[in-house]
Amino acid sequence: MIIDGKQIRPIWLDEDRFTVKVIDQRQLPHRFVVADLTTVDQVIHAIREMFVRGAPLIGVTGAYGVMIAAQNGKSASNQVGFIIQECERIKAARPTAVNLAWGVDRVLERVHAASSPAARIDAARAEAAVIAEEEAENCRLIGVHGAGLIEAVSRRKNGSTVNVLTHCNAGWLACIEYGTATAPIYEAFNRGVDLHVWVDETRPLNQGARLTAWELGKHGVPHTVITDNAGGHLMQHDRVDMVIVGTDRTTHTGDVANKIGTYLKALAAWDNNIPFYVALPSSTFDWTMTDGVKEIPIEARNPDEVRYIQGLANGRVTQVLVPPESSPAADFAFDVTPARLVTGFITERGVCSASEPEIHGLFPER
Amino acid sequence: MIIDGKQIRPIWLDEDRFTVKVIDQRQLPHRFVVADLTTVDQVIHAIREMFVRGAPLIGVTGAYGVMIAAQNGKSASNQVGFIIQECERIKAARPTAVNLAWGVDRVLERVHAASSPAARIDAARAEAAVIAEEEAENCRLIGVHGAGLIEAVSRRKNGSTVNVLTHCNAGWLACIEYGTATAPIYEAFNRGVDLHVWVDETRPLNQGARLTAWELGKHGVPHTVITDNAGGHLMQHDRVDMVIVGTDRTTHTGDVANKIGTYLKALAAWDNNIPFYVALPSSTFDWTMTDGVKEIPIEARNPDEVRYIQGLANGRVTQVLVPPESSPAADFAFDVTPARLVTGFITERGVCSASEPEIHGLFPER
Repeated sequence: MIIDGKQIRPIWLDEDRFTVKVIDQRQLPHRFVVADLTTVDQVIHAIREMFVRGAPLIGVTGAYGVMIAAQNGKSASNQVGFIIQECERIKAARPTAVNLAWGVDRVLERVHAASSPAARIDAARAEAAVIAEEEAENCRLIGVHGAGLIEAVSRRKNGSTVNVLTHCNAGWLACIEYGTATAPIYEAFNRGVDLHVWVDETRPLNQGARLTAWELGKHGVPHTVITDNAGGHLMQHDRVDMVIVGTDRTTHTGDVANKIGTYLKALAAWDNNIPFYVALPSSTFDWTMTDGVKEIPIEARNPDEVRYIQGLANGRVTQVLVPPESSPAADFAFDVTPARLVTGFITERGVCSASEPEIHGLFPER
Repeated sequence: MIIDGKQIRPIWLDEDRFTVKVIDQRQLPHRFVVADLTTVDQVIHAIREMFVRGAPLIGVTGAYGVMIAAQNGKSASNQVGFIIQECERIKAARPTAVNLAWGVDRVLERVHAASSPAARIDAARAEAAVIAEEEAENCRLIGVHGAGLIEAVSRRKNGSTVNVLTHCNAGWLACIEYGTATAPIYEAFNRGVDLHVWVDETRPLNQGARLTAWELGKHGVPHTVITDNAGGHLMQHDRVDMVIVGTDRTTHTGDVANKIGTYLKALAAWDNNIPFYVALPSSTFDWTMTDGVKEIPIEARNPDEVRYIQGLANGRVTQVLVPPESSPAADFAFDVTPARLVTGFITERGVCSASEPEIHGLFPER
């Protein structure tokens, strides 16, 4: 995306063709910091501590992690064995996003096909780059397909403002370009549709308030930050026309794991007869699981992410403790929205309903 | 309630019998500050800026505000006219809680019946004190009736931990003693029921994390602070046995205005077949409105309450800005949960379902 006049992605390869550069998203919107990744430990740290986050970006970061493992294992007596071990560690960095294992395994397959240490490094680098480009293109196509849905609402409203609600950040920061949930928004906005985005702040880590608001603001898209509690009230009063969110893992039966709180918004949309769309590249589908609520592993994170909130005070990024020091907290990162609450999926191949036959109809090769 | 060995209420009359003392709840849990109210402007400021909050406490503060108006108008050429004017200003301080107008009007009636400036002051003081005692007693009775519901769950679970979820603070800080939603929790806990409370942090002002967690901690009640996003996930996984919340205004048909986000929890409880109770003294019923979603006025507050979050940093209470400085926000204080999602009301006279006939059956004099 073009930010302040510069072309930027959340992850790229340095000119040295070895160092992986990522935006440290923990610092946004108040500081723009780029981190270098040159070891697998750094890759794992960046994924776990959420320098990078969002299913597609985690997948690409994992893919580049295999290149880093290959590079650092180039003098090992058994480079392939070393890479395999490192890949297991990378895949365990976060449990919910299916793209992580998908990206790592896809690069690993290319590594296995190569026949020398240098060839393995090159193969990993090339495949990681291919995945990044594919994800960017997938997001572009999601934008094209999803913009049609927004335009249809705009026509129905005779061109008056279309209000889209989104939760968390499924923007270009979570992907490579365009975003998943935001791709239709950017595309419709670029086509001149009058729209406005309700941005759920998305506790505990406030990716909506910090990242989605920053992205939309930089692109000039009208938006308003609201608490995660507000969406139901807005829907009751006809102030939301559609909901579009991303996902970290969606079963091939249509159950959607996404940032904690998504399920509550889906319930409210259902109760108020408002379309609830999930935008995703096919890499986010889990083709093995059938019951999302029962089967998708939900990450429990450090409760201090709930207790402490980060923001700007007197020009400095500061963390404040909200509850009493002695009160325990719990931090669940995701929840699962059952397929029955989902109006449709916006994928790189088009839109389908949240049902196994329609999903497989769109991706018959699976 | 007894806090750190001392009997304390959120509002009381000073020994001078004129100054009204309130806990400045904006400062909790990190600072315990008491504010003096001796003018109507101070009363309005304390209500609007939420030194005091919670429907019953707002009602009692408004009631004492009439006494302050009577005192300050004692030398006015038309004391009664002055008091009436001041009462209109007090009633306009916040729009949603019905208790405010109810408390003010009830004291005003006594003022009208008195025949001298001094008698009017005494009548207002006496009636405000009666309202405070009645609300305390109502909350005690809500505790007794509601504890039976918790005990029934405990028996069904063979004594294993009963998990109660609550939203915002409907504790003694919001009332006079015991609280509304917390009264059954305190009562059941005191009777020895094994229970645990999921405390919604309750954005934007974090009354759950700041006030409910503080209250429960001081009383020794096991609790865990969670984001407002987490409740649906917990309910899907059988980790919530019942929900109990308070209310700022409930129509006599059973629609419940409460802190923004309550509606989302009610939807999740409904979707997972979990009982959703609302605890309230009868002073919170609005006997004139029939459609809560359409009729109850929902207060819009300063968006900076969403953008800035207050907590402790380096031993100091500090506010941090979360979204980009340039991103607008919106702040809706309440939402309305339709009666169809409410399992029952816990009142001072017992428990009833959320239906006009049952509510009127319990309060036939209305």
